[in-house]
Amino acid sequence: MSDLDDRLPWLEALKWDERGLIPAIAQDAATGRVLTLAWMNRESLSATVASGHAVYWSRSRNRLWKKGEESGHFQKIKSIRTDCDGDALLLSVEQAGGIACHTGRESCFFRELRDDRWATADPVLKDPGEIYRNAPS
Amino acid sequence: MSDLDDRLPWLEALKWDERGLIPAIAQDAATGRVLTLAWMNRESLSATVASGHAVYWSRSRNRLWKKGEESGHFQKIKSIRTDCDGDALLLSVEQAGGIACHTGRESCFFRELRDDRWATADPVLKDPGEIYRNAPS
Repeated sequence: MSDLDDRLPWLEALKWDERGLIPAIAQDAATGRVLTLAWMNRESLSATVASGHAVYWSRSRNRLWKKGEESGHFQKIKSIRTDCDGDALLLSVEQAGGIACHTGRESCFFRELRDDRWATADPVLKDPGEIYRNAPS
Repeated sequence: MSDLDDRLPWLEALKWDERGLIPAIAQDAATGRVLTLAWMNRESLSATVASGHAVYWSRSRNRLWKKGEESGHFQKIKSIRTDCDGDALLLSVEQAGGIACHTGRESCFFRELRDDRWATADPVLKDPGEIYRNAPS
């Protein structure tokens, strides 16, 4: 991949894939934990910048998805970075509730490869039933 | 996306995309810095596990790519994690030389969005000409 051309407008300097998407890593600004890998399109990245909270593109629901809209676990943006070739984003975030995963764990990356299996390596901090009890239906 | 089915063999439990790829985040085990986002196919992930060093799939060169093969900046694997739905990987690595980026910086994520432009936020630690001087042609 060629390096990012920073003479272009910032949104167009990024390398959007054939679906118009770019992967976005969210990292907890306080703990350094990598929390999630999600996807953005131009609209969701623009909404993220405008609102100061992470807004992703849900590939399964095919719509904009403000992280935390059902769980309350919003991600407040501290900074947005891109990489040398402009085909990935790194968001430094304040993770509301200290929980990013729908399973009630701090990070979605809670499974570790051990002896040829994916072992659960992190505890559930809050029961998902409790997290989503008051979610809009 | 549905959650990872951990009854499947570990390699097949992952959600490979339509190209047979999965995104892999490399994070420095010592500093917590997110270093790179690269891609793996089944063969490169198997080679990573077997060798203990990060082996990616280069989409531009269409071949396996052992990180550091030209620069000496290998990534020694400390752990491999996947996320709740099994469609991304997180590698905790020891970064040889403390430099992951071909520009001679610690991390590929050295550009930060400031005032509607991608500002260079990190210093070059080693001149790329020096890094690649003895690279195999």
